[in-house]
Amino acid sequence: MAVQVGTRNRRVTMASRPAGFPTEADFAVDESEVGEPGPGELLVHNLWVSVDPYQRGRMSTQRSYAKGLEVGDVITAQAVGEVARSNDPRYSPGDLVVGQLGWQDYAVTRGGSVRRVPEFLDPPTLALHAVGATGFTAYFGLLDVGRPKPGDTVVVSGAAGAVGQVVGQIAKIAGCRSLGIAGGPEKAKECELNGYDVGIDYKGEDVRAALKEACPNGIDVFFDNVGGEILQASVSRLNIGARIVICGQISQYNRERHEPTFVPGALIVYRARMEGFLVTDYVHRYDEAAVRLAKWVAEGKIRWTEHVTDGLENAPKAFIGMLNGENRGKALVKVADRSEGS
Amino acid sequence: MAVQVGTRNRRVTMASRPAGFPTEADFAVDESEVGEPGPGELLVHNLWVSVDPYQRGRMSTQRSYAKGLEVGDVITAQAVGEVARSNDPRYSPGDLVVGQLGWQDYAVTRGGSVRRVPEFLDPPTLALHAVGATGFTAYFGLLDVGRPKPGDTVVVSGAAGAVGQVVGQIAKIAGCRSLGIAGGPEKAKECELNGYDVGIDYKGEDVRAALKEACPNGIDVFFDNVGGEILQASVSRLNIGARIVICGQISQYNRERHEPTFVPGALIVYRARMEGFLVTDYVHRYDEAAVRLAKWVAEGKIRWTEHVTDGLENAPKAFIGMLNGENRGKALVKVADRSEGS
Repeated sequence: MAVQVGTRNRRVTMASRPAGFPTEADFAVDESEVGEPGPGELLVHNLWVSVDPYQRGRMSTQRSYAKGLEVGDVITAQAVGEVARSNDPRYSPGDLVVGQLGWQDYAVTRGGSVRRVPEFLDPPTLALHAVGATGFTAYFGLLDVGRPKPGDTVVVSGAAGAVGQVVGQIAKIAGCRSLGIAGGPEKAKECELNGYDVGIDYKGEDVRAALKEACPNGIDVFFDNVGGEILQASVSRLNIGARIVICGQISQYNRERHEPTFVPGALIVYRARMEGFLVTDYVHRYDEAAVRLAKWVAEGKIRWTEHVTDGLENAPKAFIGMLNGENRGKALVKVADRSEGS
Repeated sequence: MAVQVGTRNRRVTMASRPAGFPTEADFAVDESEVGEPGPGELLVHNLWVSVDPYQRGRMSTQRSYAKGLEVGDVITAQAVGEVARSNDPRYSPGDLVVGQLGWQDYAVTRGGSVRRVPEFLDPPTLALHAVGATGFTAYFGLLDVGRPKPGDTVVVSGAAGAVGQVVGQIAKIAGCRSLGIAGGPEKAKECELNGYDVGIDYKGEDVRAALKEACPNGIDVFFDNVGGEILQASVSRLNIGARIVICGQISQYNRERHEPTFVPGALIVYRARMEGFLVTDYVHRYDEAAVRLAKWVAEGKIRWTEHVTDGLENAPKAFIGMLNGENRGKALVKVADRSEGS
C-alpha cells in the first residue's frame, strides 16, 4: 500500500531548560522538512506519541543514565507509527512500528531500531504501555528485581500510572496480594478496578495507618515509582528479607537535586534489598515479556487505562498534566489517524 | 583440670539509657553471686569481653533487629571464657568457649549456646574478631551480599575497625583491588599495613577527590560500616551494577533517629543494589567461615590488630572510645588470665 506523506514535519522541542516544574513556555513547536530515509532506513509517520516521567530527567543537566536534551532538540519519546517509506526489506509501507521516534510527525530511523507492532495487538497503542515499554518495566522490575513469591504482599506506589497499573496485575498473576498507592480517591478506586486488592489514596488517607491496616502480614516487595515520603512511610512495615524495587522517583524529578530520603540502616533491621533498574538493560528479553503480556491482556488478566490527549501540539500540556498526576493510566498523545486501507 | 571460681561476679550494667552519645554515667558496675549451672549448662569464667558498635543499638529504644536492653541489664557482649563448671558432657573445665556471655566475670549458659575455641587459635581472642563474629560479618557481608568478582574495586568505610580490617583482606584474596576509608592519617596508614591497596583519611582528605583519584575504574562494591556523608560521597563513583553492602551505620548510632542520607534514585542511574544483612542470619554457615578465616590468618593472608583495654570495670570507657573512633582494630577488654596449667 502507499502511505500519504505530508510536506512538513511538526516537532515539539525543548525551548528552554525547565527550572523546577516545567511550563508550556519550556517547549516550542516548529516545522522542518520531512526527512529522506537513507539505505536501511525508514520514514515513519507517527500516530501516537508517549508521555512519560523519564522525559523530565532528559530535560535536566543532573547526571543520569542517558544523555540529556539540549535546547532545540526534539523531545525524546516512544511512538507508534506507520512506515511511510522503507529502505529496509523487513518493512513495507503501512506496517506499524514502535520505537524512540520523538514528539514529531515524521521520524527517520534505522529499521533495526524499531520493533514491529503485531497486527493482533488491539489497540496498537498497547505497544506503548501494557505490551510495550511501561509493561516491560513492570514485568522485569517486579519479576526479576522484586522476585515475588506466591503469598507475598506487593505494595506499589504510583499505582494508577502507566507502570503501576500493570505491576499490581502481574503480582496477582504471580500469586501475590497487591496494594496500590495513588493520589486521590478516584485513582485509588481505579487501582482496585485494575486488579489491586486494595487501593490507598495517599492524599486523603494516612499512608502509615492505611498500610498497617491493609498489610497485616507486612510488605515483601515495595515497587517504588514515587520515592520521598511514600517510600519512607512504608519502611516500618517491611518484612525480613523484603525487596524495594526502585523504578522511578517522580516526587523528585522537578527538584534541583534529588533529596536524601532514605535511611540505609533500615536495610539492616529488615535484611532488605533496595535495587534500581532500567528496562533497557533487559532489551534482549523484550520478546519474552511481550509474548506473555500480550497473552495476559488478551485473557483479560491485565486491564489497562489510557489517558489520550489529542494533537501533537498538546504534548507539553499532557506532559505537565502527567507530572501533576492528572492522568489515569498511560498518558499518550494522538498525532494522526492511520492511513485508510491499512 | 580444676578451675578456681571466685565468690563474686562483677557485672557492667546499663544504669541509664544514653541520650545521644553515651557517657560513663550511663553504666554501673555491681556485684552478684556467681551462678550455679543447671542441667546441660556451663559456668563460664570470662577472660576477654568484646566491645562493638552494635551494643549502642541495644541501648536504644529505636526499633531494631534485636530486643533492646532495660536499665539494670548486663551489657550484651560476646566473650571468650574458660569453662569453670560443666553439666554438658561436651565440655570440661578449662575448655575455652566463645558466646554471648556479657560484660561480667561469670556467665551461666547452655552448652549449646556457645562454640568451642579451637586450641590452635592463637591468640584465642581471634574468636572474638578475625575468626569470630566480626570476621564472619566481613566474610558473609562481602562474599554473599557484595558478591565481588576478581578485578572489582572494593571500597570499605570504617576500614580500620574490627570488621573493616578483615573485609579489605578478603577482597584481596578474592582478586579485587581494595580501598579503605578511615578517620585520621594513622588509621589510613594502618589500612595499608593491613592489606588495603590504598588507605583514605576522611578527616584529612577530600573523600570525593581521593576516591576519584584512587578509583579510576569506579567502585563495584561499597562495604559500608559508617553511613552518612562517606556513603554519599561515594555514590557518584559507582559503576553500573554496583553493590552497596549495608553492614553498619556507626555515624548514626548516637542520634535520636537515623537521618535520611541516601537518594534512592541513584540506584536507578547505576542499576545498583543496596542490601543490609545480619551475620546471625548466617549462623548455619559459621563453620565454613571459621575454617577459611583461620587458615587465612595462619597463612598471614589476614593480618589483624587488637585494641585491648585492661579490666572489666574499664569496658564503658573502651566502648565510648570505640564510638569516638579511638580504637585501631578490634576493641576488647581483658577481664582475667587463663587458669594456670590449662
